[in-house]
Amino acid sequence: MKPFLLTTREAVENLRKSVYTVGVFGFGHVGLTVGVGWGLAGARVIGMTLDEDAIRILSSGASPFPEEEYLSKHVLELKRKGLLEVTKDYEYGARKSDIKIVTVPVYLSENKKPDLTPIIEVSKKIGGGLNKGDVVIIETSLPPGTTRKLIRPILEEASGLKADEDFALAYSPERISAGTALEDFLEKYPKIIGCDSPKSLEFVSELYSAVVKKGVIKMSSTIAAETEKLFEGIYRDVNIALANELAIFCEKIGVPYDEIQIAANSQPFSHLHNPGIGVGGACIPVYPHFILNVATEHSVDLQIIRVARRINEYATELFTGKIVNAIRFLGKDPSLCNFALLGLSFRGGTSDIRFSPALKILSFIEKLSVNVKVCDPLVKSVEGKDYEILRDWRDAVRGADVVIIASDHKEFREINIEELSNLAGKELAILDGRNVISSFNVKPRYRVLYVGTGRPALIIEKNGYKNHVDLGIFKS
Amino acid sequence: MKPFLLTTREAVENLRKSVYTVGVFGFGHVGLTVGVGWGLAGARVIGMTLDEDAIRILSSGASPFPEEEYLSKHVLELKRKGLLEVTKDYEYGARKSDIKIVTVPVYLSENKKPDLTPIIEVSKKIGGGLNKGDVVIIETSLPPGTTRKLIRPILEEASGLKADEDFALAYSPERISAGTALEDFLEKYPKIIGCDSPKSLEFVSELYSAVVKKGVIKMSSTIAAETEKLFEGIYRDVNIALANELAIFCEKIGVPYDEIQIAANSQPFSHLHNPGIGVGGACIPVYPHFILNVATEHSVDLQIIRVARRINEYATELFTGKIVNAIRFLGKDPSLCNFALLGLSFRGGTSDIRFSPALKILSFIEKLSVNVKVCDPLVKSVEGKDYEILRDWRDAVRGADVVIIASDHKEFREINIEELSNLAGKELAILDGRNVISSFNVKPRYRVLYVGTGRPALIIEKNGYKNHVDLGIFKS
Repeated sequence: MKPFLLTTREAVENLRKSVYTVGVFGFGHVGLTVGVGWGLAGARVIGMTLDEDAIRILSSGASPFPEEEYLSKHVLELKRKGLLEVTKDYEYGARKSDIKIVTVPVYLSENKKPDLTPIIEVSKKIGGGLNKGDVVIIETSLPPGTTRKLIRPILEEASGLKADEDFALAYSPERISAGTALEDFLEKYPKIIGCDSPKSLEFVSELYSAVVKKGVIKMSSTIAAETEKLFEGIYRDVNIALANELAIFCEKIGVPYDEIQIAANSQPFSHLHNPGIGVGGACIPVYPHFILNVATEHSVDLQIIRVARRINEYATELFTGKIVNAIRFLGKDPSLCNFALLGLSFRGGTSDIRFSPALKILSFIEKLSVNVKVCDPLVKSVEGKDYEILRDWRDAVRGADVVIIASDHKEFREINIEELSNLAGKELAILDGRNVISSFNVKPRYRVLYVGTGRPALIIEKNGYKNHVDLGIFKS
Repeated sequence: MKPFLLTTREAVENLRKSVYTVGVFGFGHVGLTVGVGWGLAGARVIGMTLDEDAIRILSSGASPFPEEEYLSKHVLELKRKGLLEVTKDYEYGARKSDIKIVTVPVYLSENKKPDLTPIIEVSKKIGGGLNKGDVVIIETSLPPGTTRKLIRPILEEASGLKADEDFALAYSPERISAGTALEDFLEKYPKIIGCDSPKSLEFVSELYSAVVKKGVIKMSSTIAAETEKLFEGIYRDVNIALANELAIFCEKIGVPYDEIQIAANSQPFSHLHNPGIGVGGACIPVYPHFILNVATEHSVDLQIIRVARRINEYATELFTGKIVNAIRFLGKDPSLCNFALLGLSFRGGTSDIRFSPALKILSFIEKLSVNVKVCDPLVKSVEGKDYEILRDWRDAVRGADVVIIASDHKEFREINIEELSNLAGKELAILDGRNVISSFNVKPRYRVLYVGTGRPALIIEKNGYKNHVDLGIFKS
């Protein structure tokens, strides 16, 4: 019998006995993780995606995200047990599933407003296959109010059923980080569950408690749960912007931000973040706009959030400005320079390049010079670019005039100034966007200009003598 | 022999044997704490202050901050041992001390620029009594660069001695919180030490390691250490402003901020702060301006810090707007209302009212009505106001039309809506600026309008029926 027609205890038992099928709408990084998690709890899983590469890889028992080792292991396991099916037929998945989980991502349209088309389309398809007793769980990050005001009416109209009575409806945001996705989902955080009726809330909370180890946090409404997820991202966006702003201040007055950050954070209430060269990924650059749009509808001006977003967008531009100034400082002609770009992903440990600042930097240096080498240990390709993506940073650095470090992959932690200088074989500018280099007591073979983030720029002579220099790149 | 003429080991030994006298310049809350800390390490202590009340109290072996129990206990202990002397004669203290510690506070002048007069005056007096081998440690929060560019030359000129050669000079910010001052200083955090020479840095670090339990963090310069302290405060100011901004958003869309905050902070990287009614105390409202002033000198615009400060200053105004709207909503005439203001200090657990938003709120309600009662369990008096400050909140609430909770003293945690309604004896507006009330499943004797912070306003009927209301108080 369908889950929402039973007691929660009976439903959980059925889940464990593989009686139920979970349909996951959108089977990318998040969807796969959530699906595998439910599979480990006992469910049969149908993953739906339009990505034919992903379908092919998953059908063979492999994972499209091999860097997620724990996830990959369990994909294979579920596949072997016959519990995992992947398809591009959303109607089929909607019909066959008892528990319907939505993870299709929502991005922004050109005018920075959320483009809800994917969620509307999926809701219609789910509604078409919805049966009495089914459970619908929305995990996509959404503007507050979307589940109640948009998704719920679509589901009810398409199915002729009533939410919270005929079927359970919950909003439960995914909270996973690239690199440790399945661990995050299963073990690290409680699952946030928000419903608009006590009946759905109790039911979905019990059901999800059978899947995740850290239990659930029950929210008073779907809108509160939607807001929760966005606030997590906004906290990060604002604090990264603050770090970026303080880093500029530190460069200007000639003190190292990272030294101050470590000291300040020895006070347990201080959590100063790392500065960077822009915030990428599908989450943090997007969520503030979800909140800003809703705020505008309510005539509220969220100044900090607005300013923070602008600062983080400007961080990449500031960094490309540093590249130009560093080249000028060394008296080189940019068009004759060999560039090495180390890192394409939006941060270390992931192959995700969505909104990655490294892509903007790549486009920028391509305009300066035709001599560009690119390295990333995880990224396989960049749409519209036909670079050979080198795996080893050493291969990219050989003969370079300018080395740009744009992601903090763990493979880059061994990068050091002396080896860079040896490989370059000439005077070199190092633009360390992620402060991966930590040792400056070095004697490079050639003179090096080192430009970090929140660190005063440094000339290191062959004899190891160091001198702070002002590249004069800061705009007010 | 004077400490800086000896090895660090010899100097530490002398300190423990009560050979050295520590002069503390400015013997308020911070100075007393630091002085007592050094006293416990073995030093003789001379505290200097112009506050004759404090001198009288301390001379009797009591503490002017009785709420700091741990501190008070040790004041009495040092006094009994004859290790603690208090005077208003700064020249005497400068002459008699081997280790000179500066804690006089620096505030802002009218135009929001730091008024460095107190630090200049104290530096001159210290310079006048400075001997070869002395140690000078500045603990006052200061604009970056003050120790090197202002204090050092004054000390050198007044003494004819050379810093880092003839005497040690360090900047080491105090990091104590009101309420747990001595515990913070002695046990909770490492001490930050910044010097402009390795010799002073090693010496003062060793010496301070004999005083505090968590050891020291050595900084590369006095300016880095000065910046560190301000960044701690700025992190808080910006995150409180973010909380205030998100709280306004939550009130507007009708979801409770505190529920969302708790859920979001179940993710270990999220540290959403509490919203409030303005930020008080001698630290957080002041430090951003220190940084902003230095940034302006370097033509850097620190937008987030600037906007955050404005939002936190505006928070009190927003709250007084809520008071007016709540009274209007109940159809009462403000001039006929009885007001109860609960809490005067800038936060719970302290008698400190410097820059407390409660004082602004008091001035505001005084203009509305002559019927104002004031309660604070710790604050003894407010300069220029001749209120009897009631100790028990119940005494202030009797017969009230409007109850305003402005500090989160632990004594206020027992406040509940039913008892407030009973004591008021009539329809009542509760303005809970600190969200101390947590139970809303109540049946008050009279209708209650509850207005929290980041919580949608609530009418609670006598039968317990609750309804959200929009007071229409939000400006864009």
